[in-house]
Amino acid sequence: MKKIKVSIIGGSGYTGSELIRLLVSHPNVEIDQVSSRKDEGKKVSDVHSFLIDKLDIYFLHPDKLSFENSDLVFFATPNGVAMNYVPNLLKQNKRVIDLSADFRLKDKSLWEKWYNQPHQCPELINESVYGLTELNRHNIKNAKLVANPGCYPTAIQLALNPLITNNIIKNDSIVIDAKSGISGAGKNNNLNLLLSESYDNFNAYSVSGHRHEPEIEENLKFFTNQKDIQALFVPHLLPTVRGIYATIYSDIKKDVSLEEVNAVFLSEYESSFFVKFLGNNKVPKIKDVRGSNQCRISLVRREERLIIFSVIDNLVKGAAGQAIQNMNVMYELNEQTGLASTPMYP
Amino acid sequence: MKKIKVSIIGGSGYTGSELIRLLVSHPNVEIDQVSSRKDEGKKVSDVHSFLIDKLDIYFLHPDKLSFENSDLVFFATPNGVAMNYVPNLLKQNKRVIDLSADFRLKDKSLWEKWYNQPHQCPELINESVYGLTELNRHNIKNAKLVANPGCYPTAIQLALNPLITNNIIKNDSIVIDAKSGISGAGKNNNLNLLLSESYDNFNAYSVSGHRHEPEIEENLKFFTNQKDIQALFVPHLLPTVRGIYATIYSDIKKDVSLEEVNAVFLSEYESSFFVKFLGNNKVPKIKDVRGSNQCRISLVRREERLIIFSVIDNLVKGAAGQAIQNMNVMYELNEQTGLASTPMYP
Amino acid sequence: MKKIKVSIIGGSGYTGSELIRLLVSHPNVEIDQVSSRKDEGKKVSDVHSFLIDKLDIYFLHPDKLSFENSDLVFFATPNGVAMNYVPNLLKQNKRVIDLSADFRLKDKSLWEKWYNQPHQCPELINESVYGLTELNRHNIKNAKLVANPGCYPTAIQLALNPLITNNIIKNDSIVIDAKSGISGAGKNNNLNLLLSESYDNFNAYSVSGHRHEPEIEENLKFFTNQKDIQALFVPHLLPTVRGIYATIYSDIKKDVSLEEVNAVFLSEYESSFFVKFLGNNKVPKIKDVRGSNQCRISLVRREERLIIFSVIDNLVKGAAGQAIQNMNVMYELNEQTGLASTPMYP
Amino acid sequence: MKKIKVSIIGGSGYTGSELIRLLVSHPNVEIDQVSSRKDEGKKVSDVHSFLIDKLDIYFLHPDKLSFENSDLVFFATPNGVAMNYVPNLLKQNKRVIDLSADFRLKDKSLWEKWYNQPHQCPELINESVYGLTELNRHNIKNAKLVANPGCYPTAIQLALNPLITNNIIKNDSIVIDAKSGISGAGKNNNLNLLLSESYDNFNAYSVSGHRHEPEIEENLKFFTNQKDIQALFVPHLLPTVRGIYATIYSDIKKDVSLEEVNAVFLSEYESSFFVKFLGNNKVPKIKDVRGSNQCRISLVRREERLIIFSVIDNLVKGAAGQAIQNMNVMYELNEQTGLASTPMYP
Repeated sequence: MKKIKVSIIGGSGYTGSELIRLLVSHPNVEIDQVSSRKDEGKKVSDVHSFLIDKLDIYFLHPDKLSFENSDLVFFATPNGVAMNYVPNLLKQNKRVIDLSADFRLKDKSLWEKWYNQPHQCPELINESVYGLTELNRHNIKNAKLVANPGCYPTAIQLALNPLITNNIIKNDSIVIDAKSGISGAGKNNNLNLLLSESYDNFNAYSVSGHRHEPEIEENLKFFTNQKDIQALFVPHLLPTVRGIYATIYSDIKKDVSLEEVNAVFLSEYESSFFVKFLGNNKVPKIKDVRGSNQCRISLVRREERLIIFSVIDNLVKGAAGQAIQNMNVMYELNEQTGLASTPMYP
Repeated sequence: MKKIKVSIIGGSGYTGSELIRLLVSHPNVEIDQVSSRKDEGKKVSDVHSFLIDKLDIYFLHPDKLSFENSDLVFFATPNGVAMNYVPNLLKQNKRVIDLSADFRLKDKSLWEKWYNQPHQCPELINESVYGLTELNRHNIKNAKLVANPGCYPTAIQLALNPLITNNIIKNDSIVIDAKSGISGAGKNNNLNLLLSESYDNFNAYSVSGHRHEPEIEENLKFFTNQKDIQALFVPHLLPTVRGIYATIYSDIKKDVSLEEVNAVFLSEYESSFFVKFLGNNKVPKIKDVRGSNQCRISLVRREERLIIFSVIDNLVKGAAGQAIQNMNVMYELNEQTGLASTPMYP
Repeated sequence: MKKIKVSIIGGSGYTGSELIRLLVSHPNVEIDQVSSRKDEGKKVSDVHSFLIDKLDIYFLHPDKLSFENSDLVFFATPNGVAMNYVPNLLKQNKRVIDLSADFRLKDKSLWEKWYNQPHQCPELINESVYGLTELNRHNIKNAKLVANPGCYPTAIQLALNPLITNNIIKNDSIVIDAKSGISGAGKNNNLNLLLSESYDNFNAYSVSGHRHEPEIEENLKFFTNQKDIQALFVPHLLPTVRGIYATIYSDIKKDVSLEEVNAVFLSEYESSFFVKFLGNNKVPKIKDVRGSNQCRISLVRREERLIIFSVIDNLVKGAAGQAIQNMNVMYELNEQTGLASTPMYP
Repeated sequence: MKKIKVSIIGGSGYTGSELIRLLVSHPNVEIDQVSSRKDEGKKVSDVHSFLIDKLDIYFLHPDKLSFENSDLVFFATPNGVAMNYVPNLLKQNKRVIDLSADFRLKDKSLWEKWYNQPHQCPELINESVYGLTELNRHNIKNAKLVANPGCYPTAIQLALNPLITNNIIKNDSIVIDAKSGISGAGKNNNLNLLLSESYDNFNAYSVSGHRHEPEIEENLKFFTNQKDIQALFVPHLLPTVRGIYATIYSDIKKDVSLEEVNAVFLSEYESSFFVKFLGNNKVPKIKDVRGSNQCRISLVRREERLIIFSVIDNLVKGAAGQAIQNMNVMYELNEQTGLASTPMYP
């Protein structure tokens, strides 16, 4: 098979370096070019020294990129960048997977409110396909523009979607206590991310509202085709590098047995290699999925409440891994290609 | 003033060593003897090398203790030990502060169910005084036997008690997502507590029910004099040494304003030096209270839900610090004596 | 090609689980059986939950193993176990790779002194082949019994061997300040390994002598064919999970230029994919090799002293990875088979 | 006694906040004013939230400070700042303790080379007193300007000074492998200090030369009155917040017994409360001194080599604690005043 040639826009951060980490082992991909404003001209493996001997190219300034030889363009840029490039790329018949938030919301005004800027290509919002692979494979397959989901929304929707679709929980009862490793905040000059600050520490943040809450609600409604879904979302910062841990509380509808709930998860993800339902009274651990594209889900019933645990690696299933999974779907490769590695433990 | 002479039963673990750490700086206390089965005969500061030059005595086997010279006995033992010693100690007119769980529940059968053994001195259960200092000062003052609260229950009750007492939240709507540092599990040969296991990791545990849930519910009912309090409690293990972080979700009663809620907290803890209400839309951090006896509380209103954050150091306000605070109350010392140190940051 | 069928003796610990982690992705290997005394009868992926869906077999008691179908046996057991099994296995024409220390020293009395027990099959000591792949490929190829090196000795010999062989440093001037992540101490009930103890901590250990010192000295002498090599070795415990970091100080012989030293390293490891010489005035990082079989080496000259830095992942190049590399050599596979994964960063 | 009124220039960083942490509990000190360029106008306890209820003042811009009411000025500023203020302060008869490096070297040209800028008040270099308290008490007592030592130099000189003074080791044989917690690099926007980068990581840095090497050599020569001292110094970055760990290798002079070495340390620090000699074949731990002003030293003899271990908390004995110790000496207070707290463990 001819290799897929890819460009990566924004290769200095953790999402970009994770894309590279995974793609250099992907048998059907060739990395064509990687851009970075701040590291322009440097060798990629000088900036990301773990990549020595794995990738032998130099960062280009984004203005110097040429897409002639690329089939697919990944955006691992800050929010608000991709939307300026995408229209032209689509005109050149390139396929695009955007790992930023630019196309995650269909409601333009909601996007503009939460991302605090005008959207630069509203006409493409409806063309974009939300890339939560397990829920949207058939649309992703033919997509020109994939909006790769946020890390929290990935873990949370994989847990909630089957429950809402199957009318197991009350749609207005959902409370999500979510925790993320620090790499989720990126490789940024933010004093709160220093080891001296965050080591041996823990705290909630964005408690009056986080951008992933509208993404979760809008997409839950869309994919379940239900209304009045309210999901209170409170994120916390873990003193770990990777990992999303979502503990989700909901009120169970009276007439559902635990066996039925289990059956729903087993059937929902039967053919989804990356989503593992652990069953009842078990708990997933973030280190058990570290470095892998897995999502692990378990649940506990406590009287009329259902508690669901969902765990992913934010940089893999929550970002670069799911992007590659989507690419595999788009190019009709086996979904696991390049993503089958075993989690790194301990 | 004559110094209070104290015995510490169980000095090998973290609760015991924290008691010593704090008491060696307490101006009104003299440590008379410290026991340990496994470290019998060793110098305390050989086992706890951070105590070199701070305490110059040797661990005694518990059978070799003599209480003649002691005014007060602290138990920092595993659950099920103190109840065998306490009757005799009270007969000898010693005062007792039990940092284990032996006297935390008034309902004997509930205790026996959760602690999986018969209670050895049920006649003393009602004599014991629950040592959540801020809620029970007047009883602690004259207590012979103080049941020092669990770490989770301390953080959680300080947050919930004012809200329930003042009818601000619905008693059956409470969901507590709690996180604890690993020292809360003690200094035990448990493979899950190894750094290799727990570093860069995070997970829920005891998800089908934890012993602190009945302690929370029973005491919330007792101190608020209300019924039908249901507090769903799910603990998680943080990859930190110290700290309890409770994120508490509840439904607010319709007719209460945020200003009224704030006023309740400010008034409730006006004269309680160790409980700091931070206000709305702020979040406490566990490292901001590390090593100190503080509890920090904040809250956020999200439509009809009230989210309360409560943070303590599990070994201080959640164990040894509150035990000393109770001792200060019992001996009519200023409550802050020996406990005024500034948190250690960063 | 027919798959190599392997048995793993001792699958509960970190060396065993790392062997499994790597072997389940090895295209030429089938894991036949895995033993464990303490986890007998349990599913491997119940004990090592990161392996769910990766390996579907149960731990056997070592007495219940049958080697009929195995080509190769890995020992990931405590020191002193393998030597009791190896003679019989060799008689059955099985090949053996011992990851413990039983065959690492040729000097039997030295072994017995440092490992504090009589050797059970001294007749095999000389038959065993020291498995530091880069230094001993031609002997490993035909070996029946490979003694896989210790983690420290691997990192240190790869750095020192070219310098001693080429007469660059004075043989009696070597000082090795080495640091190891905590997984090097195994998955054991040792209170010093608890996160509460080792987090935010650091200390030297075994300062009056560590078992890896005679292994380093004996093998340096053997492979360089030089005498009077003295390597003072002081290990320290890092609060990380993985990683060996060796900082090696030596006196340079007067007539050698830095260019010559560089040339020696480049030529020595030209065809050794896993050993990367970074050059001068650079420093390797342990996270840059995490999860991979790489060794990274750099050096600095400070007047007449040469400082060499050498870094590996103790569980991969320092244990399971090198064992598999040796297996690849023994079965004439490409040395990188199953070991080409990119380090996990961040 | 009248309280000492102090100003702190540079209160945003870790050295500044540690000064405040310790001074708010000092019975003889009143903090008059704290400056910060970047946090001007903010409440100190809003920036350093662990200080809530401990200090009720606001950061001033350094240009708005008035020293009329201050007796003593602490500089916790970046290198190159204090030297611009000190001449005026001395003229106003203020005493100054500079925690930066501006006055640590007597050799002006050496200072200018290593700090890469012209010195602004060379005339004061010789007036300044090097504040390694245990070695220089009698000069500190009357000093107007104290140059507080660097963190590495403090740990290293306390270990080496007695050995060199007493002719125990060869002056040109010294190799120092030093490790520091990340807070030593300050609260700066440096991507290498992010938790995502430094967690589970370890590496050497400044391997071709670090500013603390000339400080160590110059002051060792000065205080021991010996020549030809060469101390090769290689620093490493630990994934911890606090702590300096120095492992020092040296050649012992042939005619010295271990007993004599021990006697030297015991006698040298007999009256120095903060320096604890642990003896032979023991090792200090960084967590055993965390948060305290202690230095712990031990040693091991290995044939003709002497290995010395020296441990401090870089922010306390390595910075703010020693500054306060010096202040206590200058004001003829007990040296331990405000510094007697027990290390925080675990």
